[in-house]
Amino acid sequence: MTVIAASVDERLRLAKDAAREIALLDSARKSALLVAVADAIDEASAEIVAANADDLERGRTDAIGESLLDRLRLDAGRVAALAAAVRAVAELPDPVGRVLDTRTLPNGLALQKVAVPFGVVGSIYEARPNVTVDIASLALRSGNAVVLRGGSAAQSSNATLVRVMRDALSAQGVDPEAIQSVDDFGRDGARALMNARGLVDVLVPRGSASLIETVVTESTVPVIETGAGVVHVFLDATARDDWARDIVLNAKVQRPSVCNAVETVLVHRDAADRLLPELLASLSDAGVTVHGDDATRAHDDRVVAATDDDWAREYGTLDLAVRVVDDLDEALAHIRRYSTQHTESIVTADQAAADRFLAEVDSAVVLVNASTRFTDGGEFGFGAEVGISTQKLHARGPMGLAELTSTKWLGRGDGQVRA
Amino acid sequence: MTVIAASVDERLRLAKDAAREIALLDSARKSALLVAVADAIDEASAEIVAANADDLERGRTDAIGESLLDRLRLDAGRVAALAAAVRAVAELPDPVGRVLDTRTLPNGLALQKVAVPFGVVGSIYEARPNVTVDIASLALRSGNAVVLRGGSAAQSSNATLVRVMRDALSAQGVDPEAIQSVDDFGRDGARALMNARGLVDVLVPRGSASLIETVVTESTVPVIETGAGVVHVFLDATARDDWARDIVLNAKVQRPSVCNAVETVLVHRDAADRLLPELLASLSDAGVTVHGDDATRAHDDRVVAATDDDWAREYGTLDLAVRVVDDLDEALAHIRRYSTQHTESIVTADQAAADRFLAEVDSAVVLVNASTRFTDGGEFGFGAEVGISTQKLHARGPMGLAELTSTKWLGRGDGQVRA
Repeated sequence: MTVIAASVDERLRLAKDAAREIALLDSARKSALLVAVADAIDEASAEIVAANADDLERGRTDAIGESLLDRLRLDAGRVAALAAAVRAVAELPDPVGRVLDTRTLPNGLALQKVAVPFGVVGSIYEARPNVTVDIASLALRSGNAVVLRGGSAAQSSNATLVRVMRDALSAQGVDPEAIQSVDDFGRDGARALMNARGLVDVLVPRGSASLIETVVTESTVPVIETGAGVVHVFLDATARDDWARDIVLNAKVQRPSVCNAVETVLVHRDAADRLLPELLASLSDAGVTVHGDDATRAHDDRVVAATDDDWAREYGTLDLAVRVVDDLDEALAHIRRYSTQHTESIVTADQAAADRFLAEVDSAVVLVNASTRFTDGGEFGFGAEVGISTQKLHARGPMGLAELTSTKWLGRGDGQVRA
Repeated sequence: MTVIAASVDERLRLAKDAAREIALLDSARKSALLVAVADAIDEASAEIVAANADDLERGRTDAIGESLLDRLRLDAGRVAALAAAVRAVAELPDPVGRVLDTRTLPNGLALQKVAVPFGVVGSIYEARPNVTVDIASLALRSGNAVVLRGGSAAQSSNATLVRVMRDALSAQGVDPEAIQSVDDFGRDGARALMNARGLVDVLVPRGSASLIETVVTESTVPVIETGAGVVHVFLDATARDDWARDIVLNAKVQRPSVCNAVETVLVHRDAADRLLPELLASLSDAGVTVHGDDATRAHDDRVVAATDDDWAREYGTLDLAVRVVDDLDEALAHIRRYSTQHTESIVTADQAAADRFLAEVDSAVVLVNASTRFTDGGEFGFGAEVGISTQKLHARGPMGLAELTSTKWLGRGDGQVRA
């Protein structure tokens, strides 16, 4: 079993040193390493489940609620799924070494822009222990060391998972310091991570809007902001009845807790009489509580009155805000005001309206006639998802392994000097 | 003449509104706009030079020093050069709309990742009024609005330049609020810019290391860090005499004040007797003061003793630190410790050493047998340079117009929902 450094600073320094070794491993070696990590997780299944039982017991004592308990829970099946996910990451193409640009200067100096690992990736996240394994395996596949700070609710599970992964690296002859946890330092661990400029190259927060807001505001390490989704579907005047209904129901009901679920539906006034009665009935049948403006409520008395707060809410539940708007311009203005710039979709048969929506909505993913639930690394074919970036710097939308790399210019000359 | 909003917040909001219009302009329109801006600068030349005279007079009263006065100075020739630079930017390819990725999901949903403007680009910089025009024109070419905060020493020059550019937009029927200055609010203007999350999409500081450090530390708006260069050249055991001498001299002497000038030369012990006598003599002849370790000083008594501080210094002058190292490993360790990860170069005839240097040095630009002075957007063929990024997120190394864009995923479907 690997020894764990006593101080946060020491762990960060050790991670930075280990990052140099990980960055130079070739693709096959990194894959083999991940397979070894997956095997180790499988072998330690009983131990992981036992550690998780401690977290669950504490969670019950602290009355954290059934839905959090469920996200926290690891049983033998879930541990096997964790290991399988690591094996899937092992098979993904290596994002490191891709040549992204090539230029030869007039004097013969040959330049290449290549993808390189960041170095050390930090992550601050909440109660789900699967994120521990998820982020660690994605970081390793992309040649990075990783420093993890998970939620205190999952502390025993995370400690065991980190130890199992570190031991697996060690057994493979690779520096185990490439995987670090600072969970045991509580908030001080998170703070150290956020201020570790020069030691941590990028920080990816995953979790609630307030966690992400804290990290974005307090961190001096560059952050990739993920997450919050106040997602809109606009049903245009020419929206097909079946597409309007199917897309809204899918976007709201299929998995309401996720960030790509729709939270507000805007309906063109000219289509309200045609679309709303059936749509509202279908939503009610599916158990959705609709929070509507007056024009919406006129169509169905099960609709509750929306307040201004509803337009800005990411419900994450079977609740949906619905508003009737005069036209595309009013829809665009509403989206500009309330969207978190994650995903918006228009349902329309009007090409000009579709084109304007695509051009003018300033969100990571803008769709025409499709469910907002497609904003997902797996759906996009990335094979894995680091998160969904809602910022504009570096990465926007679903992030795959490529987004865990930076670049470097390499130049090969024969004595060139600048004139 | 366009009216200027009274409060910082109002200016930022107006810039954000104007950004929507600028983002949708096509390439030809943006070029025409920039040509109009260039013409307006030419026409206002006398007025700009007069405003600049006020700044120069205040600078002399404040005794800011000859080198700052020179950077501040605008005469008719320099104003014409400013206008010419804007015309050159007008001719650069439009970075907006490039299709960066295309995917069709198995269900037929067609996805495109396209380059889009950031929205509002902020810049905080020091006394050079040419940066005002430079950043504004690069921002417009890439479809962005811009909020500028220049140094107080150039306040009159900047105010006139901003007014001339705003009036030119206005005369072209484009919202002049796309170009804003917050110079008149002093430090409060800078602070407002650094905390304008949601209004400003990216902040590019340009200037001294301390200015950049302040912006990186205090800003909640995402920052692209530019600048500081403690740049190294390593002369390996097999370095050719002529390349070693030419590259070091070019990298130090050609323009010592810039960030890609070399600050420390590391010499392999096995090459020291062969290379150092002539190299040190050439450096002395060129007026360079060498700060050396004992092994270097043994070769030339004009070499002054280096202190530990010298290894971390970005001189920006005709000073150079020189150290003899045992081997490539010691050179790499020195660079790891002291480099600002801007540019490093190895001079070697040994392919294995070159490959290790390229792979292991973690800097924006890593060169073999070439002067570090090539780290430059113009030299790289970008046609313009926004700055040289020394961070790993979003942009690394010389930044061209492409680095002033973000991306957006567009998806066109026909009723797809997620299974």
